[in-house]
Amino acid sequence: MNRTALIAVDWGTTSFRAFALSGTLSGEETIIARTQAPAGIMQVADGAFETVLEEQLQRLDAGADVPVIMSGMITSRQGWIEVDYLPCPAGGDEIASALHRHETRAGRTVHLVAGLIDRREPARPDVMRGEETQILGAVDETSDRSLAVLPGTHSKWAEVGCGRILRFSTYMTGELFAVLRQHSILGKLMEGDDEDEAGFEAGVRAGLASEGGLLRDLFSVRTLPLTGALAAGATASYLSGLLIGAEISSARAVHRGLDAPVMLIGSDRLVARYGQALALASIRSERARDDAAAWGMLRIARSCGIVGS
Amino acid sequence: MNRTALIAVDWGTTSFRAFALSGTLSGEETIIARTQAPAGIMQVADGAFETVLEEQLQRLDAGADVPVIMSGMITSRQGWIEVDYLPCPAGGDEIASALHRHETRAGRTVHLVAGLIDRREPARPDVMRGEETQILGAVDETSDRSLAVLPGTHSKWAEVGCGRILRFSTYMTGELFAVLRQHSILGKLMEGDDEDEAGFEAGVRAGLASEGGLLRDLFSVRTLPLTGALAAGATASYLSGLLIGAEISSARAVHRGLDAPVMLIGSDRLVARYGQALALASIRSERARDDAAAWGMLRIARSCGIVGS
Repeated sequence: MNRTALIAVDWGTTSFRAFALSGTLSGEETIIARTQAPAGIMQVADGAFETVLEEQLQRLDAGADVPVIMSGMITSRQGWIEVDYLPCPAGGDEIASALHRHETRAGRTVHLVAGLIDRREPARPDVMRGEETQILGAVDETSDRSLAVLPGTHSKWAEVGCGRILRFSTYMTGELFAVLRQHSILGKLMEGDDEDEAGFEAGVRAGLASEGGLLRDLFSVRTLPLTGALAAGATASYLSGLLIGAEISSARAVHRGLDAPVMLIGSDRLVARYGQALALASIRSERARDDAAAWGMLRIARSCGIVGS
Repeated sequence: MNRTALIAVDWGTTSFRAFALSGTLSGEETIIARTQAPAGIMQVADGAFETVLEEQLQRLDAGADVPVIMSGMITSRQGWIEVDYLPCPAGGDEIASALHRHETRAGRTVHLVAGLIDRREPARPDVMRGEETQILGAVDETSDRSLAVLPGTHSKWAEVGCGRILRFSTYMTGELFAVLRQHSILGKLMEGDDEDEAGFEAGVRAGLASEGGLLRDLFSVRTLPLTGALAAGATASYLSGLLIGAEISSARAVHRGLDAPVMLIGSDRLVARYGQALALASIRSERARDDAAAWGMLRIARSCGIVGS
């Protein structure tokens, strides 16, 4: 019988996901039950985090004595309990040692995972909350040195070695796409949101070749359709490709000399898009296993004895 | 007596400006009267451009027989009469030859100035409407080769030689600042819109040094205040500086080898900001004379005999 030994909660800005885990690292059977809800920290009113947590955990049918581990924006200033960033490099052991323990009013023990801060470049301090857990759950602890990429609103690129996160960088790709699509003249001139393969590829190639002229390349998203060089219906895909290409070009310069395939962690759609863009940049990629956040939290919990090995 | 020989209209997206000119190029006394209104093409309802024009020109007290010359977005697809772009390089003579003549219902003769297109880079065709006229009015026709910079929503950098516009490039600096300020997480974390000198300078330096990592540098606008390295009240100025610095860095790579001071054309505030940022990049600049658009249109009108020399 698979008894729940740990509840792992991935609580972000816009969504809540929880997993009931059996405590072994042996594979898919370790996830006994799961639940998810559009109950991200921005959707929780009046700081009622504990109430939301108890409501969600009832669906997992686990006793109040089962330890809970949480990661994501729930530990930020805008979340439930702010936990200071842990400096990078850091691996499962450091992250486990820095867990913040909290007893809820209902008597439940909650362990909060600290986010990471990379201060290597003083002009560009970098931070993550939640991604460190996904990375720990996705990468092979024994591999020498590799890159994990988490595409999204704020895309993260992280160098990992022997299960430790060595350094990382963030790119505002997804957010820039969204504000330009919705609020700029570029968005006003776009027709439709259908994906256009050729437009996306052309955008990626332009982004990869831009050599830093993003402010200038953005104007081409206006002039290419104006001059008939790009269909109006392909413009949104072109912009998406241009930004992803610029991100890859920039990140490649930041994280040099990594030959292993890049590990992609994210939704099906974004992983497919980034895999395609990386291939155009001659960078191999592979997809991380599903539920990386749950595996990462199980690893951390085992590392500090919250659940047995 | 200074009789009006020409009416020059600078009609853009958000504003309408008109000048009554005496026809000589001899100096400030050439401008007999002027008017301006927030009647840009986006504010004109139902295509009533002729009505707006007649209303505005009444303020200049010039007869219906005085020729009118116009430039700016009024000649775009969203304006009154679309005039095809003229290919670059082009100077006063080519632009004068390409004037589009239109008789209004009121019997007035209107000459519309074509915008320019630069197709040198197929992946980044570039266009301007109105700036070509300002540049012609600002630069010295006898100077060998220089750069004119028109900061704004879509900043333009143009190489000029012997009074001809040789090539140019556009940067979406102002628009990107506006959408990020108003609609992104960066804007949400900013406190106030006061200008902060130190924050602006630090931003310019970061932008100049960014070497193409704009998507990454934007995230530092979040992390620098988060880590206490930048005051929340300085963040808007930092973002402004970062974008202007990135524009300069990119434009400098596009327009190499130009030693003469850059000619700045624009509002007092933007010219001061760009002058300061250019100085941080060790690029000298000087301010163009006022009313460059009016002088440019007078030059074009004289070049094709609409007014006498």
